[in-house]
Amino acid sequence: MQLSPEIIQKLEAIVGEQYVFTDIDTRKHYGHDETEDYVFPPNVVVKPACVEEIAQIIKLANTYKIPTTPIGARTGLSGGALSVYQGIGLSMERLNSILDIDEKNLQVIVEPAVITQVLREAVAEKGLFYPVDPSSQGSCWIGGNVAENSGGARAVKYGVTKDYVLNLEVVLPNGEIIWTGANTLKNSTGYNLTQLMVGSEGTLGVITKIVLKVLPQNTHNILMLVPFFQVHQACEAVSAIFRAGIIPSALEFMERDAIDWTLKFVDGLNVQVKDAIQAHLLIEVDGNYPDVLMQEAEKIMEVLESFEIDEVLFADTEDQKKALWKMRRSVAEAVKSNSIYKEEDTVVPRYALPELLQGIKKIGSEYGFKSVCYGHAGDGNLHVNIIKGDMTDESWHTEVPKGIRKIFELTKDLKGTLSGEHGIGYVQKNYMDIVFTRTHLELMESIKRVFDPNNILNPGKIFPDER
Amino acid sequence: MQLSPEIIQKLEAIVGEQYVFTDIDTRKHYGHDETEDYVFPPNVVVKPACVEEIAQIIKLANTYKIPTTPIGARTGLSGGALSVYQGIGLSMERLNSILDIDEKNLQVIVEPAVITQVLREAVAEKGLFYPVDPSSQGSCWIGGNVAENSGGARAVKYGVTKDYVLNLEVVLPNGEIIWTGANTLKNSTGYNLTQLMVGSEGTLGVITKIVLKVLPQNTHNILMLVPFFQVHQACEAVSAIFRAGIIPSALEFMERDAIDWTLKFVDGLNVQVKDAIQAHLLIEVDGNYPDVLMQEAEKIMEVLESFEIDEVLFADTEDQKKALWKMRRSVAEAVKSNSIYKEEDTVVPRYALPELLQGIKKIGSEYGFKSVCYGHAGDGNLHVNIIKGDMTDESWHTEVPKGIRKIFELTKDLKGTLSGEHGIGYVQKNYMDIVFTRTHLELMESIKRVFDPNNILNPGKIFPDER
Repeated sequence: MQLSPEIIQKLEAIVGEQYVFTDIDTRKHYGHDETEDYVFPPNVVVKPACVEEIAQIIKLANTYKIPTTPIGARTGLSGGALSVYQGIGLSMERLNSILDIDEKNLQVIVEPAVITQVLREAVAEKGLFYPVDPSSQGSCWIGGNVAENSGGARAVKYGVTKDYVLNLEVVLPNGEIIWTGANTLKNSTGYNLTQLMVGSEGTLGVITKIVLKVLPQNTHNILMLVPFFQVHQACEAVSAIFRAGIIPSALEFMERDAIDWTLKFVDGLNVQVKDAIQAHLLIEVDGNYPDVLMQEAEKIMEVLESFEIDEVLFADTEDQKKALWKMRRSVAEAVKSNSIYKEEDTVVPRYALPELLQGIKKIGSEYGFKSVCYGHAGDGNLHVNIIKGDMTDESWHTEVPKGIRKIFELTKDLKGTLSGEHGIGYVQKNYMDIVFTRTHLELMESIKRVFDPNNILNPGKIFPDER
Repeated sequence: MQLSPEIIQKLEAIVGEQYVFTDIDTRKHYGHDETEDYVFPPNVVVKPACVEEIAQIIKLANTYKIPTTPIGARTGLSGGALSVYQGIGLSMERLNSILDIDEKNLQVIVEPAVITQVLREAVAEKGLFYPVDPSSQGSCWIGGNVAENSGGARAVKYGVTKDYVLNLEVVLPNGEIIWTGANTLKNSTGYNLTQLMVGSEGTLGVITKIVLKVLPQNTHNILMLVPFFQVHQACEAVSAIFRAGIIPSALEFMERDAIDWTLKFVDGLNVQVKDAIQAHLLIEVDGNYPDVLMQEAEKIMEVLESFEIDEVLFADTEDQKKALWKMRRSVAEAVKSNSIYKEEDTVVPRYALPELLQGIKKIGSEYGFKSVCYGHAGDGNLHVNIIKGDMTDESWHTEVPKGIRKIFELTKDLKGTLSGEHGIGYVQKNYMDIVFTRTHLELMESIKRVFDPNNILNPGKIFPDER
């Protein structure tokens, strides 16, 4: 589409000339995120300063039926921030303040463009803990975390973004501003629009303020890296640890390839892996009492005795802990630096993980692709990176999607679903029919129409193209 | 309204003659819950055996536009199960099985008519823990807990019903059956219809199966009863305990009157209260390590030193613990046995509790009513029992509602809302305009129409009569 000079002028009148960009470099910059190699530049990039300006922009967009895509840190993995129908790219970057850290109520109020790690560190300085830590926490924003219902390594014990969102200020597609709920831990007052908004990927409203619950900070943790000779045993150990009554604060799974590529990609990690090792679990327990943590670590070691493992590496120093976490967090980047890729965000009940992994490998060999798997095994959330490598373009575009469909059918059979924490966005939308009936999808589409009858907000996401 | 003999016959054909009741005694029995003295008998009470029968009943109701109210244990406090427009009273009582306790995934699948305590005990036998324990847990059902998003004493540490619901089987108002999500801990796949359904009070669908997350069972706890000479200090101590880095597993508040009435109402509690005591906190910490709990209890005692308290009673035996919990759980019944009452379920950020309590007393004296307050102070959830006593009927029906409006306006000013855990149902719906704008209410009403265009499911609930 094209936007008329009149629209551009109106946008300039709202946010100021210096915050409206129509040059191709800026548009391209805001037209991609971390999803494969997609680039969808909007016609114009707008950088509002506050909720009132956003409300005016959205009213304008609604009047002229201009597709408008809220853009966060562009670290997303499902294409949620891509302007697939062009229009206005609404960069949230200037709404980047922590407005309040309320130590008395253990709540914070933040704007959407606050970097997740910045918030985590700011509350930590006051002895508080915001547990949600996506691997991209150093660059992703809270607003995007809310839009995609992001998880991360600590979700297994502490839950995901949705579990911390108490209340949201939202600009609706008609330009009106509402708060979805109240700043309370409990709320049984009407339909839960807060939770409807969380994970709706910018399709129902523009989130402009976020009230989050925080916890008292834990003071201690123990981190261990466990090498397994059998990949399926690594998966089986996950559920065994929970059955022993322990809830680790992280329980991460990495296939052999994931580790190898990462050790090549990141300098100075200083981790040795024997040839026969097929997979690793990275296990953390946390709390305030070192003795208790030692007991829990011992209990985990007891559980692990029934599996074929090599020597467990306990991280002795803060530096060693940082190195192990850096290794885990760099897997995605390392794998992707090697090849064009597609990443799927499968999730199943945790006990089904061995079966899922085995199935993925089988499907890969049927459809001719290699995959590198890793992820949050504690909550059954396995990231599947499908590697293009030297596959032909034709196979990549025809065979791989068929294989992905098989993988999602398998996750559904295992009582899981398409996405654990990345969202559906642009790249998974045509698999939605696997997990939802037509009635179910129509319910969601009707809810979308209730909020956004003109389909201006982030069109082309979540819902399948045709059915 | 009247239901034709033809409709009754069709219902009999679906569930069998013996499960269709039109006699006035049965209808009256299913026409009330624990909400004030309301009785709204349906025209017919139907007791289906399974989801398929429910789907057929709902299809029939939708075709003939018959109001249909799902009826649970009728322990509700907001009138959610009352057939205010008559029609079909859909008793869920025959769907009362625990279908699966999945120890490997820490999940259970239950039907809606399972008594909450029965579920809690069944999972406890397998070393698992379902933490949500409304005061009525001995008689309320899981289905009602989901419909109203019930809380209870342990919500302060463990969250409310919504935090445990992973997936729901629901009969939609058109008679179709869907599962709202997946049996996974993480899910970012489309709009969160699971959480939209939780707390929707039977207005969007009939819940027929519930997948809940459970935790490993804690093995130890410490329970203490703390008498305060100043009521506002009891409220202030609540937030002080959290600021000391402790998250108690329960933190309950009882005004002096609440205790006195309960001690009169329940035999053999053996709790002595000095004349000068104005309020109590009942505080519990739980976990697996007795030493840690002792440290936490000591830390709580340190915090309490800055308040004027009398001697703290530590429950030494299981029997003593049971007695203290019985006392707390019997407050509502005790207060209500004395007089006609109205119960409001106010909730605010916990630090605002002293101000809320003070405000309620001031409003009471302005509008001429006495209130007895108690509740889950740890999460800012204060139950306000307004006592009719010797108030005239006229004042009861004119002045008290004005006072209640003032109380809710106050909760809103304190960033709280109308209901923490009881739901809006029939009795709070005309206060919804206090916390929601017209736009917001219209969004909710439009969502209701998406699911239920003929307004057959539990009509007359949540939404205000007129605006």
